[in-house]
Amino acid sequence: MNLILLERDEVGESGRVTLSGPRADHVLRILNAAPGDRVRVGVLDGPSGVGTVQSTGAGEVALHCAFDADVPPTPRVDLLLALPRPKVMRRLWAQLAAIGVGRIVLTNAARVERHYFDTHLLTPESYGPLLVEGLQQARDTRRPTVSIHKQFRILVEDVLDGLFPDGLRLIADPGATRTAGAVIGGHLDARPRDRVLLAVGPEGGWNDFETGLLAAHGFHAVGMGPRTLRTDTACIALLALVHDALHTRT
Amino acid sequence: MNLILLERDEVGESGRVTLSGPRADHVLRILNAAPGDRVRVGVLDGPSGVGTVQSTGAGEVALHCAFDADVPPTPRVDLLLALPRPKVMRRLWAQLAAIGVGRIVLTNAARVERHYFDTHLLTPESYGPLLVEGLQQARDTRRPTVSIHKQFRILVEDVLDGLFPDGLRLIADPGATRTAGAVIGGHLDARPRDRVLLAVGPEGGWNDFETGLLAAHGFHAVGMGPRTLRTDTACIALLALVHDALHTRT
Repeated sequence: MNLILLERDEVGESGRVTLSGPRADHVLRILNAAPGDRVRVGVLDGPSGVGTVQSTGAGEVALHCAFDADVPPTPRVDLLLALPRPKVMRRLWAQLAAIGVGRIVLTNAARVERHYFDTHLLTPESYGPLLVEGLQQARDTRRPTVSIHKQFRILVEDVLDGLFPDGLRLIADPGATRTAGAVIGGHLDARPRDRVLLAVGPEGGWNDFETGLLAAHGFHAVGMGPRTLRTDTACIALLALVHDALHTRT
Repeated sequence: MNLILLERDEVGESGRVTLSGPRADHVLRILNAAPGDRVRVGVLDGPSGVGTVQSTGAGEVALHCAFDADVPPTPRVDLLLALPRPKVMRRLWAQLAAIGVGRIVLTNAARVERHYFDTHLLTPESYGPLLVEGLQQARDTRRPTVSIHKQFRILVEDVLDGLFPDGLRLIADPGATRTAGAVIGGHLDARPRDRVLLAVGPEGGWNDFETGLLAAHGFHAVGMGPRTLRTDTACIALLALVHDALHTRT
């Protein structure tokens, strides 16, 4: 926990906050904070800031918080992900929030098993705390926006332009020879665009209809060499490459 | 399982192999293979090849295998990692083997808890199958070489030059402004070197003595932007960036 995230309604007048539970434990036991010490804080989907410990005791910590004027920018990368099996999705939530994505669009695909959608991990009550865990790790306050789509074709044909109107669209393709960096570099040189949407398929890959539909809707294939990676490893690796390319180029 | 890995002594005369257990189940139930079908095979630390199904039955599959003349090259990246907590290390083994590392050097550091070394996950019996799982995912046959070092200073001063004699050494540093790509690019232009060793510290970071010792032994700091990532996320992200930089430059 490199940042303590607060719900907006936890912050009282003139920045007063009382922590209890795991966040108070963290301040007391891991940070060993005493009155006068300062800790990093942030408001969910709001500004970061600094909290000064006012008093401690009985598993509670009283902070006085001062927040920055600006809210951190939304990460410039969005992810379109064929829903992986629940065990993999469970591991991904916090890592996606930590590495930084603006939007997580989960979709069905021919090689996604139907029962993957039944998991409780797809409810905000379940993934919300995992996203917050990742944000607290990465010192960010901006929760990714999550949407879940059971009809791939309707998503791509009717919904995607609304969710992602103007950025560069990439699709991870083990057979592609161009890297994300090369494709992003070429496009940003030609026509700078703010956002990148990265599509990652199911463990067995997209089928021909799906890759055709994505190509017809502007997705450029990017590869990562001959190694086939598990969905969670592939997502982290590709998001790192896309962030790096955006950072290097702009 | 995108490749079925065999121990060398499982391969009989003229390439005959009989599979049972999980690998036979995979061929029969996931690949639905019948006599005459071909499956990807490989010998651990040896060549890849193709196995033709000869017969199936009673949870067994008989293959006739033909192997390539060449053994795949060792991945060009090595990892020096301050031992993370057991839960994180457990997740990492397969992912490291999948993304590709030649050598995994695990070390103690001031902010590594002593009891992390007590876990059974550090025995070859325990991590071996996890490495094989990652290789089978990525279609590689070359097991990373693993070594475990409880004395950081002795490792860096006396052992490291033997393990890693001539390559470029990088240390992940949240404060560094140069990316892995920029450092690798600059060095490869000046003096091409075959291998990169990437050092990743403990969750709380290296202490000043440790970063000083690593700098004195040729490690160049590389950063990945302002976000602080969990050890496993950071390893995957940085290994992807290093592989990409080596691939792009050479």
